[in-house]
Amino acid sequence: MKQKRATVTFQPEGIIVEVPLGETILTATKKAGIILTIPCGGHGRCGKCKVLINKGQNSLKGDFHTKTLTLKEIEDGYRLACQTKVEGDLEIFIPGESRVISQKILSDSLPVKMEIAPVIIRQQLTIPQPEEHSNMADIDRLLVEIKKTFPHQQIIIPYENLQKLPKILRKKNWNITLTYQKTSTTKLEILEIQAGQANGSILGLAIDIGTTTIAASLIDLETGERVQTASCVNSQMLAGEDIITRIHYASANFSNLIRLQNFVIKDINNLIKSFDCKPRQIKALTLAANTVMTHLFFGIDPSYIWREPYTPAVSQFPTIQADRLGIKIHPLSKVRALPCVSSYVGGDIIGDILVSGLHQKDKPSIIVDIGTNGEIVLGCRSWLLSCSVPAGPALEGAEAKCGMRATMGAIERVTINPETLEPTFNIISAEKPLGICGSGLIDLIAELFQAGTLTKAGRFTVRDHSRIRKGVHGLEYLVANKEETITQQDIVLTERDISNLLRTKGAFYAGYVTLLKSFNLTFQDVDTFYVAGGFGDSINAKNARTIGLYPDIPLEKIKSIGNGALGGAGLTLLSEKFIDTAKRIAKSLTNIELSKNYDFMDEYTLASFIPHTHLDYFPTVQKLIETGGIKY
Amino acid sequence: MKQKRATVTFQPEGIIVEVPLGETILTATKKAGIILTIPCGGHGRCGKCKVLINKGQNSLKGDFHTKTLTLKEIEDGYRLACQTKVEGDLEIFIPGESRVISQKILSDSLPVKMEIAPVIIRQQLTIPQPEEHSNMADIDRLLVEIKKTFPHQQIIIPYENLQKLPKILRKKNWNITLTYQKTSTTKLEILEIQAGQANGSILGLAIDIGTTTIAASLIDLETGERVQTASCVNSQMLAGEDIITRIHYASANFSNLIRLQNFVIKDINNLIKSFDCKPRQIKALTLAANTVMTHLFFGIDPSYIWREPYTPAVSQFPTIQADRLGIKIHPLSKVRALPCVSSYVGGDIIGDILVSGLHQKDKPSIIVDIGTNGEIVLGCRSWLLSCSVPAGPALEGAEAKCGMRATMGAIERVTINPETLEPTFNIISAEKPLGICGSGLIDLIAELFQAGTLTKAGRFTVRDHSRIRKGVHGLEYLVANKEETITQQDIVLTERDISNLLRTKGAFYAGYVTLLKSFNLTFQDVDTFYVAGGFGDSINAKNARTIGLYPDIPLEKIKSIGNGALGGAGLTLLSEKFIDTAKRIAKSLTNIELSKNYDFMDEYTLASFIPHTHLDYFPTVQKLIETGGIKY
Ligand code: FES
Ligand code: FES
Repeated sequence: MKQKRATVTFQPEGIIVEVPLGETILTATKKAGIILTIPCGGHGRCGKCKVLINKGQNSLKGDFHTKTLTLKEIEDGYRLACQTKVEGDLEIFIPGESRVISQKILSDSLPVKMEIAPVIIRQQLTIPQPEEHSNMADIDRLLVEIKKTFPHQQIIIPYENLQKLPKILRKKNWNITLTYQKTSTTKLEILEIQAGQANGSILGLAIDIGTTTIAASLIDLETGERVQTASCVNSQMLAGEDIITRIHYASANFSNLIRLQNFVIKDINNLIKSFDCKPRQIKALTLAANTVMTHLFFGIDPSYIWREPYTPAVSQFPTIQADRLGIKIHPLSKVRALPCVSSYVGGDIIGDILVSGLHQKDKPSIIVDIGTNGEIVLGCRSWLLSCSVPAGPALEGAEAKCGMRATMGAIERVTINPETLEPTFNIISAEKPLGICGSGLIDLIAELFQAGTLTKAGRFTVRDHSRIRKGVHGLEYLVANKEETITQQDIVLTERDISNLLRTKGAFYAGYVTLLKSFNLTFQDVDTFYVAGGFGDSINAKNARTIGLYPDIPLEKIKSIGNGALGGAGLTLLSEKFIDTAKRIAKSLTNIELSKNYDFMDEYTLASFIPHTHLDYFPTVQKLIETGGIKY
Repeated sequence: MKQKRATVTFQPEGIIVEVPLGETILTATKKAGIILTIPCGGHGRCGKCKVLINKGQNSLKGDFHTKTLTLKEIEDGYRLACQTKVEGDLEIFIPGESRVISQKILSDSLPVKMEIAPVIIRQQLTIPQPEEHSNMADIDRLLVEIKKTFPHQQIIIPYENLQKLPKILRKKNWNITLTYQKTSTTKLEILEIQAGQANGSILGLAIDIGTTTIAASLIDLETGERVQTASCVNSQMLAGEDIITRIHYASANFSNLIRLQNFVIKDINNLIKSFDCKPRQIKALTLAANTVMTHLFFGIDPSYIWREPYTPAVSQFPTIQADRLGIKIHPLSKVRALPCVSSYVGGDIIGDILVSGLHQKDKPSIIVDIGTNGEIVLGCRSWLLSCSVPAGPALEGAEAKCGMRATMGAIERVTINPETLEPTFNIISAEKPLGICGSGLIDLIAELFQAGTLTKAGRFTVRDHSRIRKGVHGLEYLVANKEETITQQDIVLTERDISNLLRTKGAFYAGYVTLLKSFNLTFQDVDTFYVAGGFGDSINAKNARTIGLYPDIPLEKIKSIGNGALGGAGLTLLSEKFIDTAKRIAKSLTNIELSKNYDFMDEYTLASFIPHTHLDYFPTVQKLIETGGIKY
């Protein structure tokens, strides 16, 4: 007799879910709250979603399995979660490498001193009661009193606040608390009218929607304090890990687009629920995200953003009432997004600029935002230049053989004994390592180079060593052997991994130089080198400089600004002037297209070495080599 | 065995509905689309909802029946629809007097000549396509082109119109049709963006929400033509026939208020469905209604409007997007209401003024709006004065023994042979009469007075006549005997009916005089006497003047403006300047409270005669008496 539903048990968590027969294992994992890594968007092409069937069916559908898994894996019981339907009760083991684990997000504090002039203000009022010869409409009576405080402002009262007005006014003897939101310099909109004296903090929400992670910080709009922060995986991951897959998905039809929009809105609502406040206390929301993520958040078609000639639909996003978007904060709150400059330069970069204060400095500074896509800004008070680095996610650990994101199990810091070549490493929140994240890769290359085991071109100078051996992709360095790892497989750094990373860091370096050159500047002219994103804090700046990812400037000029998107979004909540500043920055920022820039191409070729073809560009490294600090 | 549901057959229509046991007959009538008259709001107190049970149960619940029906009626099988639950299959006859029948509504043509400058405009545009070195956001590209036509306007693009923008632009090769709505003199909001060249008329909807009837007219915003009109009974009747009952109902709790709001919104949506156009073609809506009805439409608490010191919640109503109210026209259309001046002077009166053009004239004119509540306006270009007549709905036929509204079966015109006292009458849409409506009452009194059978005080001078006899309330005139009527009961005009009507018309006359006196004017100074409302057309102006409801001025100075609320609402759709004019009128209108005005009280006493205590105020009537045209 056929079963209609089946139970699926996920190990090692032991989570049991009940699903209708015919659903994919991928869908079942979602129900269990487990997020699998699905780089190909669940189309059976990447093989990354593999899971191990412990008990239950083992039928094999389609030829996706044979194309992505080894025969051994298939025989062992590995299946693609996205291609395998539940046909009966199952017990499934999910290997660590198939999971997306909530990332370590650095949400940094706001700049220390600033004048707080929040967009939300509160006022207590006592209104004279109506009498026989003074019986104008309640609203007019209220407006007369408001005008005494705000004579020059246009006061807007949303319809929802009129509906119950008569009883609210009379409830506490015509004593009320008004909460306004400034919608422009001349307009005040009444957000809330409460009887009597209202208490409780007024909160604002800053949101950073990353391709993989959504981070939120709750800010007290009166004190400027950050009350709480939270982050979660962006559920859009279920529709594809990378941006291109999501654009294709959203482009197919309008309901797909709305589905992606709803994913993030639901994520944001869940983050809101996790905070220790009443959702209605949150009275403003600002979002900072890259151009595609911002489009998806608003449900605006992103089809042409990443297609020549690269036109986003919108750059300055509209201000929308929270309830129209389904965001569960005070329904009349305004939701804003930091503006985007172009297809590649989004609100996240505007946030970086706001937080760094680069747009206010006399001398030029550089911001580098190292994420899935690298962005560089060079500028000062008078001008702003930006470019997107045409580099893959090598620094996110995605391209290396044993690479992974900076999540649980990642090797994030490494030192190598130059004599024995034995490594010592830090692992994020785990005993045993699972892989190597970007900062770990940088450390490894820098340490190996300093130990004299790597050439400028990133080739091993040593072979037949217990740690350096021949692998499938040229020589490789054994970081941890299988006895020490979670996966029970060796963790290695291959020559291919190194050359991938050198290409990426070369693109960044070439980016800095190309921007500087267009104003005839050199690194000597740079006031500060800001590093935005979680990387800024986890990267060993000295090592990053040694391999040439950072330029050779004094370490004290290198500053981490953490999550600039989140910080910048927060600033606009605390002072309305930042909203205008953000728009002004977006308008004045000039983006340079590197992919067809010959200067860039030349610089790129020169920079794909450790630290650079021209050692004299890295005097610090040169000096270390001369003094023997680096064996070379 | 117990039945769960029962069928109820309504006669004479023969409509059959199936209802759960335990529902009231009143609810069942609603399902059958039959609207009963329920002045007490369905609380069993007025007895007006009585229906005759032809077949089926005849049990009797509660003591409401004995208090409101006669023993004979109960024995005959009459039951209160609101108090009787369905216990099994039933056949029910609904007497005409228990029904509310769709009223005869006069929806009048707009003033002949006016400049049309509608709030909705349409534009065709061709936009240069993006290229490698011109790849700004789609929206910015669009705005550049729009700005060429509207350089000084702020262009607002609602979020909904951004979502699909990229594909719409590209669908017909960057040829599009834009529809804008003017939201202020400096702002244009994009209502719709369509690919290619869009056709079809652009329509606007004018709505008049009366206490009993909702009227709508569909207007072509480009030609100014009225395309279609429709009207229906205001479903709020189900919650009470009169305004006070509805205020109490809405005041009890917020969900009651929203229920009343939803009633009218559903009615309006049904009217929209009845039109021969796509709902999305309707791109603007203006509403004109009295203060309470306007509050209820917006779901704004009306609790204190009719309670001392008479304060409405709102006078200038907000402009709201149609989809926020659930009105099924183009979702981004603006819904506006003509402003209200006070608890008694609503947007309907502002509409009357707009249509009459009184606010533009050099010489003062009068508008009288004879509805459930009488309103009078006196004014000119420089000043505007208004008052509400503290009179019951006598002119709507509600107070007379055989009175009824101007609906099917009502005697609306009467002439009486002065020799035989035999009447001749017109009946609205029926063969046999059901009762007498306001215009019929006026004719009867005027004709009886002219025949010399009534004194100035409204007492019969004749008795022991086949047509004049003694009834329960003094003498009465037999208008139609039971053989001739639908109800098979005599239709009569009693002395009490006459004195009720004289009191009402006296109040109106005293109202005119009181307003005139405050500016030291007389009827000689009045340029035009406008009559607004359905009455204007159906009343015999000469008779109305004979009994003193209208002042004694030349008949050519008396003009009917029909449904001024509907007309005024329509004007604001055709020219934005009328929106401002309406606001200006509302602000400059001074309302005089008559209920405590001594001048008014004195005038009222003098005016409650036919035509007036001082016959010399009515020289035309005086002359007729002197020449024998009126037997007196
Ligand atoms: S194979 Fe790529 S997600 Fe399943
Ligand atoms: S008794 Fe008044 S409605 Fe039924």
